[in-house]
Amino acid sequence: MSRGDLYTRALAMTKRIYELRDALGWSAEETQLAISLLDDGTPITLHDVAFEPVLLSQASDTLLARYATLVRHRGIIGCYLQTELGHGSNVAALETTATYLPTAREFEVHSPTLTSTKWWVGALGRTATHGVVQAQLVLPGGEKAGPHLFFVQLRSLEDHTALPGIRIGDIGPKALGGWATTDHGFAQFTHVRIPRENMLSKFAQVTEDGRYVKPPHSKMSYGGMLYIRSSMVTTAGWTLAKAATVSLRYTTVRRQGGSTPTGSEQQVLHYPSVYYRLLPVLARAYVFIHLGRYLTAAFSATTQRLAAGDTSSLAEMHATTSALKVLVTTATARDIEAARRALGGHGFSAFAGLGTLYAQYLPSATYEGDNFVLDEQVVRAALKAFHALRPSSESTLSPSTQYLRLLAIPRSELPLATHVLADNPGQLVLMLELRAARVVEAHADRVQDGGLDAGAAQRLSNAVADAFVAVRVSELVDELVSSSLLPRDQATLRDLYILYLLVTLESALSDLLSFAIVSAGSTRTLREQIAQVCLRLLPEAVALSDAFGLSDWELDSALGVYNGCVYEALWERVQTEPMNQARVTPAYETHIKPILERGQKRAAEDKAKL
Amino acid sequence: MSRGDLYTRALAMTKRIYELRDALGWSAEETQLAISLLDDGTPITLHDVAFEPVLLSQASDTLLARYATLVRHRGIIGCYLQTELGHGSNVAALETTATYLPTAREFEVHSPTLTSTKWWVGALGRTATHGVVQAQLVLPGGEKAGPHLFFVQLRSLEDHTALPGIRIGDIGPKALGGWATTDHGFAQFTHVRIPRENMLSKFAQVTEDGRYVKPPHSKMSYGGMLYIRSSMVTTAGWTLAKAATVSLRYTTVRRQGGSTPTGSEQQVLHYPSVYYRLLPVLARAYVFIHLGRYLTAAFSATTQRLAAGDTSSLAEMHATTSALKVLVTTATARDIEAARRALGGHGFSAFAGLGTLYAQYLPSATYEGDNFVLDEQVVRAALKAFHALRPSSESTLSPSTQYLRLLAIPRSELPLATHVLADNPGQLVLMLELRAARVVEAHADRVQDGGLDAGAAQRLSNAVADAFVAVRVSELVDELVSSSLLPRDQATLRDLYILYLLVTLESALSDLLSFAIVSAGSTRTLREQIAQVCLRLLPEAVALSDAFGLSDWELDSALGVYNGCVYEALWERVQTEPMNQARVTPAYETHIKPILERGQKRAAEDKAKL
Repeated sequence: MSRGDLYTRALAMTKRIYELRDALGWSAEETQLAISLLDDGTPITLHDVAFEPVLLSQASDTLLARYATLVRHRGIIGCYLQTELGHGSNVAALETTATYLPTAREFEVHSPTLTSTKWWVGALGRTATHGVVQAQLVLPGGEKAGPHLFFVQLRSLEDHTALPGIRIGDIGPKALGGWATTDHGFAQFTHVRIPRENMLSKFAQVTEDGRYVKPPHSKMSYGGMLYIRSSMVTTAGWTLAKAATVSLRYTTVRRQGGSTPTGSEQQVLHYPSVYYRLLPVLARAYVFIHLGRYLTAAFSATTQRLAAGDTSSLAEMHATTSALKVLVTTATARDIEAARRALGGHGFSAFAGLGTLYAQYLPSATYEGDNFVLDEQVVRAALKAFHALRPSSESTLSPSTQYLRLLAIPRSELPLATHVLADNPGQLVLMLELRAARVVEAHADRVQDGGLDAGAAQRLSNAVADAFVAVRVSELVDELVSSSLLPRDQATLRDLYILYLLVTLESALSDLLSFAIVSAGSTRTLREQIAQVCLRLLPEAVALSDAFGLSDWELDSALGVYNGCVYEALWERVQTEPMNQARVTPAYETHIKPILERGQKRAAEDKAKL
Repeated sequence: MSRGDLYTRALAMTKRIYELRDALGWSAEETQLAISLLDDGTPITLHDVAFEPVLLSQASDTLLARYATLVRHRGIIGCYLQTELGHGSNVAALETTATYLPTAREFEVHSPTLTSTKWWVGALGRTATHGVVQAQLVLPGGEKAGPHLFFVQLRSLEDHTALPGIRIGDIGPKALGGWATTDHGFAQFTHVRIPRENMLSKFAQVTEDGRYVKPPHSKMSYGGMLYIRSSMVTTAGWTLAKAATVSLRYTTVRRQGGSTPTGSEQQVLHYPSVYYRLLPVLARAYVFIHLGRYLTAAFSATTQRLAAGDTSSLAEMHATTSALKVLVTTATARDIEAARRALGGHGFSAFAGLGTLYAQYLPSATYEGDNFVLDEQVVRAALKAFHALRPSSESTLSPSTQYLRLLAIPRSELPLATHVLADNPGQLVLMLELRAARVVEAHADRVQDGGLDAGAAQRLSNAVADAFVAVRVSELVDELVSSSLLPRDQATLRDLYILYLLVTLESALSDLLSFAIVSAGSTRTLREQIAQVCLRLLPEAVALSDAFGLSDWELDSALGVYNGCVYEALWERVQTEPMNQARVTPAYETHIKPILERGQKRAAEDKAKL
C-alpha cells in the first residue's frame, strides 16, 4: 500500500471503531482498548495522547465550557504543535510568536521565518481541525514572556480547507516506513488572530489590558510530560514482550546445524550465542512491565500532591522519569533488533513482524526528550544531589539518589568483590548502586578539575538508571517469597530477575573494574553465573513468553505463531503478496522482454563474428 | 510507491542503462558504474554478483560454449538458488535433491518437502529466466554426495511463464521497506529433468554412467565467497562515508541550546555527546575503505595462487574475511543508526536518507554468513592456531594470528599499562594484540576446564578482528610520513587513525581490565585522550567528509546537502509529497467528516441533557 492508502485505511478503521462504540454501547475505556487492538497508528492517536490531555488540563473554564465536550466526542479533531523546523528540544528557542493586542483583545499567532514552521505535528498534515500551538508570548510592550500554549482553529468545519493565513501540509514519509498511517504535518501562520480566551490560561495568564500573570510554579505544566514518560516504560515492556515471544518461539521451532540424539538438527535457541542474546530480552520485558506499574503508582501519588499544591516530588519524578526513559527506550530499540537478528534470514521478511515493531518503536529514542539531551538533565540532577550530600545525612536522600549513601562509607569497609554470586541478589544490587555512586563522584571530581570525558553524561545517566531499576528488581525478588506462586515458579522468576541483574552487571564491567568494585578475576565468575542461570531458564523460556498472553493477531508474525507451524504461516502470507497475483509480471512485456531480446541479439552478433 | 511500482521502476532504469550503453558505446565497467550510480537495488543485481560469476567460474566448457555469451549480454537473466525455507547457513542440510538418472543421462531436480522450497532468492520472484540451484547430489545407487550446483531453466523464453514442474513466486515485502526493488522469490521443483551437462562440473563431476568424481580440493569453490566478503569491507567503508558526511554536515548547520559569543544557539556537533558519537564513525569510514583496498589486493594474490593449484592461503583468507565481515557489518549497521539518531527528530524523516541507507544495509549482518555463525568459525581457526603454537615458533604464525606471538613472552615482561598514550600508536596496537591473545588463551583454558561463557565466541571474534585491523591502521599511520601530504594534513589523518585505535580500546576496556593489560586508572586517561583527539579533529570534520567526494545525488539526503541549506531542502522535498497534492484529502468526505459529524451530534446531545 502507498502512504495515502495506509492513511485512508487507518481513518476507515477509526471511523468503524466509533460506529461499533455507538452500536455496542462501549465505554471510553472499551473504545480505547479496541483502538489499541488495531495495533497500528491512527491519525487520531495524537488527539488522544497529546491534544486532549493538554487542553483539558490547561485550558480556562471558559474555553472548556465551549470545547471540552466536542473534544471528548471528536466533534473536533486536534493536534499539538510544538516542534519547529529549526527547533526541537530547546522549547525556549521556539520562534513562533503569539502577540497580545489589547485593543482587539486578541492574540496574533505568527511564523516569522522558515525555521519557525511547525513540523513533525501528528494529525496536522491532513486531519486535524484544531490545534494547541506552543508560541512565544509577546506582551504589548514587546516584552517576551517565554513559550505558552494557544488553542487555534486550523481548518474549516464546513469543508476542511485550511483557514486564511494558515499553510498546512504533510511532511512526507518517515524512515524505515515507520508511522506511515500518521499524517505528521507542518504549519505556517501569517498574522492569524485568535480570541484572548484561547490562551491556555489555567496556570499563566494575560489580563485584558495585557499584564502577564505568572504560574504559581514554573514546572506546573510538567505533569503531562511525566505521565507520558512513565507510560513509555510500560510500552517498552510490552514491546519487548512481543519481540521476546516471537524470537523465543521461532528459535525453538527452527533447527540448524549440529545434531541431536534423534538425528535432527539442533534447536537454534540451544546455541549459547542465541540464548545469551534472547533470555536477557525476556528478562527486561518482565522487569520493564513491573517498573511501568511502579511508575504509574508513583505518578498518581505525584499528581495527588500537585493537585494539593505540593510540588515537592516533581523534581524527583522528573529526574527519575528522564533517566528511565533513556534506559528503556535505548534498551528496547536495541533488543528488538537483537531479537530480529536472532531469527536469521527470515527475520528480514516483513512477515516476521519485528521489522515493523522496530520502525514504530525507534523514534521513542528521540521524541519526548532526545535521549542524549535527557542524559544531561540526569547529570545535572545527580550532581545537585551529590553536592547537597553531607556525611550522616542519608535521610535527606530522595528515592532516586539513595545510592549516594554509599559514598559516606569508607572505602576500606567496601571490599573488592572477588566473586559475583547469583544467589545473593542483595550483593548484585549493591554493586550497581556503588557503581552509580562512584561514577557520579568521579564525574564531580572531573568537572572540578576541568578534565575531559565526552561520553561521561551517557555513562552516568546509565549508571544511575541501572541502580534505580536494580533496587526495584530486588524488591520483585523479595515479593516472590510472599506470593501465591508455586515454589518452582518462584524459582524460575527469581532466576529471570537475577539474570536481569547479572547482564546489567556485565554491561557495567568496565565501570566495575575501573572503580575496583569487582576484581579482575570476577569477570569470569560473572559470565559463568550468567550461563548457568540461562541454562536453568532455557526449558521455561517459551512458557515465560506464553505467559504474556499475546495473541497471534497482536504479534502479527508468521514466525511467532502459537501453534509453531512457522513455515506454513510464512507460505500462506506469501500467497497474499500482490506481486504474485498475475501469472507473469506486467513488467515482462514492457521491460524484461526488451532486455532479453537485446541480449539475445547481441549474443547472436558476437557468435556470428567468431 | 507500492512494491510493484518500485520493482517496475527499477526494471525501467535497468532497461534504460542498456539502451544508453548501446547508444553511447559504454564498456562493461562504465555500464557497471552507471548501474551503481542508480544507487538503488535492481532485480538484475543478483545476476551480476551471484549468478554470472558462479556460472562462469564453475560451469563445464560445454555449458559455457552454449550460455556464456548469453549470460554476459543478459540474453538470459539468472539467479542463485541456495537458501531454503527451512535451511540457511548449514548448506549440508539442504533438502533439494538432484538425482542422476544414467539411462536418460539427466538429473532430476526435486523439492521433497515444504521446508526444501528455495527461498530468499534475489530476482527469482518475477524476473529470472534461469538459475543455478544448490542441491544434494544423489547418485544412481541412492548414495548422497553432498550439495552441488545445477544450471536450470526456470521460465519460458517465449512468454516468461514458469516451466512445467516449477512453482515460483515473490516472497513478499522485506523488513523496514528495505530491498523493495528486488523480487526475492521462492521455487518448488517437482521432478524437473535437466541434461547431465547442466551440473556445474569444473570441479566435481558425475560420469555418464553415474560415478562421482571428487573435486581436487574440498574448498575449491570458496573463491567467490572470499571475493564477496572482501568487497563487503569496501562497501561498509563507503556506506559509513555517506552516514558520516550527512551527519557531520547537518550537525554543523543545526544549532540547538547553549549560546555562542554571537548570541546564536550552539552548533550541535560541538556538544561532547555528539562529536563523541560521530567522529569515530568518520574514522571507521576511512579505516574500512583502506582495509577494503588491502583485502582486494590480498584476494588477488590468493586467486593467483589458487589458479596455480596452491590452496595454502585459503584457510587464512577464510578466517580473516570471516572475522572482518562480522566486524565491519556489525559496526556499520550500528554506526548508520548512531549517525541517524545524532540528527535528532529530522533523522526519522525519510528525506534525511539514513533510514533508507540502514534498511538496505541491515541484512549484511545476516547474509553471506550470519555474523553469529561466523563468530564460531573465527573461534575454531583461532583455537587451531593456538594449539599449533609452540614456544619460539613465531615464524609459522599466519598474518591473522601474529598476535599469538605475545603469548610466548613471559607476563612479567609485559607490564601493566598505567597510561594510554595517543602519541604512541605502537602501544595502542600492542594492547589490542595482547587482548586478542589473552582472550584466545582464556577461551582455550575454559574449553579445557568445561567452563561456561555464552558470549565467548562473539567477544573472541571481535578481539581477533580488532587486533588484525589495528595492525593495518598502524601501517596507515606509518605510511603517512612518507606520503606527499602537507604536514598539517598528515597530522589530521594521524589523529583520525589514532581515534580509531582509541575508541576500539575503549570498547575493549572490560577485556583490557580483566586481563590486567591496563590499570584501573588508565580508563580515565584513555577517555581524556579520546576527547582531546576529538577536539583537534572537530574543525576538520566537514573537510574530512567532503574529501569522500560524495555528490548530493549519491547522498540523497535533505540534511546532508553540500550547500548547507538543509531547511530549504527539506521544505522542497515536502512539497513533492503526493498526500499534499489535493487541497483537502479525499479521506475527508469518506471518513473524517462522518467522524466529526458524529462527534458534534453527540456533543450537542450531551449539552441538551444538562
